[in-house]
Amino acid sequence: MQVTSLLRFSAVCPFLGHSTPASLRALATVSGNNASALTSTAMQCPMMGPKLAQIGQQRGYASVAGNREVEEIHKAKNVAYNPSAAPSGKCPHAKAAQQAAAVAQKEAEKASLGEATQRSTPAPKATGVFNYGNFYEVELEKKHQDKSYRYFNNINRLAAKFTMAHTASVKDEVNVWCSNDYLGMSKNPVVLSTMKRTLDRYGAGAGGTRNIAGNGALHLSLEDELAALHRKPAALVFSSCYVANDACLATLGAKLPGCVVFSDSMNHASMIQGIRHSGAKKVIFGHNDLADLEAKLQAVPKETPKIIAFESVYSMCGSIAPIEAICDLAEKYGALTFLDEVHAVGMYGPSGAGVAEHLDFEAHHATRESGEAVSRSVQDRVDIITGTLGKAYGVVGGYIAGSADLVDVVRSYAPGFIFTTSLPPAIVSGAQASIAYQRESMDDRRLQQINTREVKRQLGEIGIPVVPGPSHIIPVLVGDAALAKEASDTLLSKHKIYVQSINYPTVARGEERLRITPTPGHTAEQITHLVQSIESVFNQLDLKRTADWEAIGGRAGVGMPQAKEVPQIWTDRQLGMHDGSAPLRLEHGKEAVAKDDAVKIAKDRLTHLLGSQAGPALGDSAVTA
Amino acid sequence: MQVTSLLRFSAVCPFLGHSTPASLRALATVSGNNASALTSTAMQCPMMGPKLAQIGQQRGYASVAGNREVEEIHKAKNVAYNPSAAPSGKCPHAKAAQQAAAVAQKEAEKASLGEATQRSTPAPKATGVFNYGNFYEVELEKKHQDKSYRYFNNINRLAAKFTMAHTASVKDEVNVWCSNDYLGMSKNPVVLSTMKRTLDRYGAGAGGTRNIAGNGALHLSLEDELAALHRKPAALVFSSCYVANDACLATLGAKLPGCVVFSDSMNHASMIQGIRHSGAKKVIFGHNDLADLEAKLQAVPKETPKIIAFESVYSMCGSIAPIEAICDLAEKYGALTFLDEVHAVGMYGPSGAGVAEHLDFEAHHATRESGEAVSRSVQDRVDIITGTLGKAYGVVGGYIAGSADLVDVVRSYAPGFIFTTSLPPAIVSGAQASIAYQRESMDDRRLQQINTREVKRQLGEIGIPVVPGPSHIIPVLVGDAALAKEASDTLLSKHKIYVQSINYPTVARGEERLRITPTPGHTAEQITHLVQSIESVFNQLDLKRTADWEAIGGRAGVGMPQAKEVPQIWTDRQLGMHDGSAPLRLEHGKEAVAKDDAVKIAKDRLTHLLGSQAGPALGDSAVTA
Repeated sequence: MQVTSLLRFSAVCPFLGHSTPASLRALATVSGNNASALTSTAMQCPMMGPKLAQIGQQRGYASVAGNREVEEIHKAKNVAYNPSAAPSGKCPHAKAAQQAAAVAQKEAEKASLGEATQRSTPAPKATGVFNYGNFYEVELEKKHQDKSYRYFNNINRLAAKFTMAHTASVKDEVNVWCSNDYLGMSKNPVVLSTMKRTLDRYGAGAGGTRNIAGNGALHLSLEDELAALHRKPAALVFSSCYVANDACLATLGAKLPGCVVFSDSMNHASMIQGIRHSGAKKVIFGHNDLADLEAKLQAVPKETPKIIAFESVYSMCGSIAPIEAICDLAEKYGALTFLDEVHAVGMYGPSGAGVAEHLDFEAHHATRESGEAVSRSVQDRVDIITGTLGKAYGVVGGYIAGSADLVDVVRSYAPGFIFTTSLPPAIVSGAQASIAYQRESMDDRRLQQINTREVKRQLGEIGIPVVPGPSHIIPVLVGDAALAKEASDTLLSKHKIYVQSINYPTVARGEERLRITPTPGHTAEQITHLVQSIESVFNQLDLKRTADWEAIGGRAGVGMPQAKEVPQIWTDRQLGMHDGSAPLRLEHGKEAVAKDDAVKIAKDRLTHLLGSQAGPALGDSAVTA
Repeated sequence: MQVTSLLRFSAVCPFLGHSTPASLRALATVSGNNASALTSTAMQCPMMGPKLAQIGQQRGYASVAGNREVEEIHKAKNVAYNPSAAPSGKCPHAKAAQQAAAVAQKEAEKASLGEATQRSTPAPKATGVFNYGNFYEVELEKKHQDKSYRYFNNINRLAAKFTMAHTASVKDEVNVWCSNDYLGMSKNPVVLSTMKRTLDRYGAGAGGTRNIAGNGALHLSLEDELAALHRKPAALVFSSCYVANDACLATLGAKLPGCVVFSDSMNHASMIQGIRHSGAKKVIFGHNDLADLEAKLQAVPKETPKIIAFESVYSMCGSIAPIEAICDLAEKYGALTFLDEVHAVGMYGPSGAGVAEHLDFEAHHATRESGEAVSRSVQDRVDIITGTLGKAYGVVGGYIAGSADLVDVVRSYAPGFIFTTSLPPAIVSGAQASIAYQRESMDDRRLQQINTREVKRQLGEIGIPVVPGPSHIIPVLVGDAALAKEASDTLLSKHKIYVQSINYPTVARGEERLRITPTPGHTAEQITHLVQSIESVFNQLDLKRTADWEAIGGRAGVGMPQAKEVPQIWTDRQLGMHDGSAPLRLEHGKEAVAKDDAVKIAKDRLTHLLGSQAGPALGDSAVTA
């Protein structure tokens, strides 16, 4: 869209109509972090003000977009303006003015880049060559067309006010209900304190790969902790679990001669990529479908190396894999089991090792301190467990755990591990403190489950369609991409609740949803507010209730004929409801308090490296003095 | 290796000979972070003590290994012990005792894992299936055979004592000469202070992907900073530059119809993987060989989409690409230019934007504050610049910068960007502070270059063979894998200097080297100590000098016939040697002081989000109170 288009729009708006392009350009100039004079002026307009505020929420790459109407800008890019196309029932100037503002904002951005655009005007290139600019436009247009173009919300989670976040405006606060910081460990004092002590002692970055200057005692210590957590001989840390899954599957799949990888149909993108990158043959089996998996395993010769790749908790629907039965099949047919516990570590099991540990809850709990063997535990039977440090553990990074030789093979051959800067010392120590804390205390994951049950119960009572599942993830079915996005936008702008809508391709078309993830930090009042707000949005947008889905035969597990109740994987007994040890829900206005004994254990873990107190505040003193 | 083997060795050692297997097992038990009683006892043995100390340095996966002799353990795994095979000239007990200690340490590790091994003994599996354990052993053996098996040194860089680090023992300090924290930004007070303020305000982790709860104002702000740094319309941040290169090349290569990627023969693994993952046709051209590149570009139809993928500074040899000439070829043949500036950002150019900026040093410097256009600058002519936040900027993460639509395509299609937890707020803000600081002050990169010149000069004077190059990387040629490792080990253990040896496959066989990277934090005394130590090691191991290489026709650019002097890319004038603005080398015992004005600018950058002072120390107060 050129500046000349601005002239066309300016004729429609009483303000723009009185300004010359030169003065508009001058108004659009910004310096530093200030808004341009044009934006400031536009904020005063009764039509543009609220629109710009809304746009500000979602500023990112699609920085001028962020709602359905603005999508039209992209589509209309080279189309002449037609005033009769303005949305009905609104000021006829609104859309044009919004487009003009978008142009102005783009101009402002260019100005803030020091007129980069002017400089980067391509020199005349050879003729007959490929048109890259056009190619980009076409690829982006495809995303707009199939409604999979993503607008990022601007969400800034506040450590001191967990579960609140501010939006693009630091004064506008919302309640976050869709973070993967499931347990609030990202604001746990022992994690923050450990990270700050580490910054003082070892600085901000590792300064190299694991092989060159970037391998420290903290990295080894974290890997020891992870191996012990999963009761495996070894573990290896990666930049992320995306990288861990990709690197591990790509390496094993490529190296095992003639390997066939059996992949659950709902597997995460990182596993799909890893399998693709391995070049191994891939066989997809139906989601959690043991009969289908067995039939497909049978079809491959017994001596052929095989990997069964699957997840414990599936992120978008909250289902849980039949891990033990898959291990049975793996043993029967000679396959390795590769289990992604990304959404489960920290959340299940007496020490937070995940669903595999949870399946022998009582036995693992009883031997937690003695370290005594749990004979043929499910966890032991899984060959490779992968997990993240960035969700329940609240930091960032990923890992694999397994036999020493398996881990050493991946360590020795995976380029994605070898040729990358290792995680910063503070990230690594913070993650270890978080894991150590969660190994010691079950309170957070219990309260998370108690809150999950309560949200599910309250939503169920008023007929809001929740996809049934045994885990902590609460998918509320909407069943339409535009409506799901509108429901999310309305929750944010009207009810100050942030729940991201999940659309195709993350979920199937027609199964679009709001994905709710309660935390132990959500209070009873916040739960009530969430449920009331969802009800209000369902009414306002006339969204289908459970009964409506039932009437049309059900969808995505909601309102299905002869549906059975799905039991939660955490039992009443495991939640401490029988012996009175269940944690209490937070009261309004009260802050969660970290458990002293768990804090002490987590803190002591690294005392030999970090000292028992925070070191001299190198950064602070030098800067604030 | 089984415990029974220990019995065989025990017969050779006077200590082990008097102990029963049961008491050895008891001695080998460790708790927490303490060494086992067996290790403590072994430390007192005149033969084992020094060996174990050396082993401790390199504890990692190859945790019992770390030097050439110990490699033999792996090879000898299932071979019966033969006393006559003991190394000559040493105590005949040494090797056996060392192996016994290795077994004991393995036992100790098992014990520390809560007898994990006992538990994870696999159940009897179906017969006739693939033997995975054997496969792992064979793959690891290959690495040992070709000497590419990696032993990680345990190096813990100390922020308050930059450039020093402690090894496995916190009391054993060494001088680090091979870190990629080139400018010491990982200990810069404004970086540390910014990160701590961010931890207090926004917590430890982002809590989600960029699309779901993990996109904050800090992420957008960093991307604005990066775009402005490179004077490009847009930038996008990834977990690492490995991921950035992989994701960007894989996405573009796959989507551009019939794309051909022209790849420099010395390109980094991340680019090689990205190209491979794209499925596009790859054409490798000779390192920095313009004639070869042009011939290969000519062979592909003009209208075919093409990418030329290359680096500005090549990490292992320190060469620099002819960026401008490659841009000329790209324009002539209609190719996109993809330039990896990973080892150059922060290090070259008046604002630290890299070599592309450096090539128009004076013009960019003159317009740095006004933001005025630099007509047809080399930087503008490069389509895609990728860089890291983990080397000169001292934190972690990677990015791409380019046109808005290009960046939006990668943002919209690359699974490695979309489906991963975004970088923690503190990482993102620390990186931005670092970039802002380096945009404002040239002192660090100037002093880095001045120190580089001095190290090269002193090494040259005594005939140490340095691979000639125009950049900050100083490769000292050794030319033999075992000797390079021994040189590195000797520098560490005898001279308290850490320089990692670089062996095949990172460099070609016969071109093994020590890769030295000076920093502005190295003092004149440390430089002298480095040079004297290298001289001592060259004498001790009888390594080839420049004259020796010359006598046999030269290698890897060293001692080549008719070699021309390679001018350094930073000129005397750019270093401030003509106008007296060149920074002074640190004196012994003095600490580097961060430049006040640059600190202020970097700090103010995020004041609107983080406040002007450190917030209440949420973590500290709750934990240490």
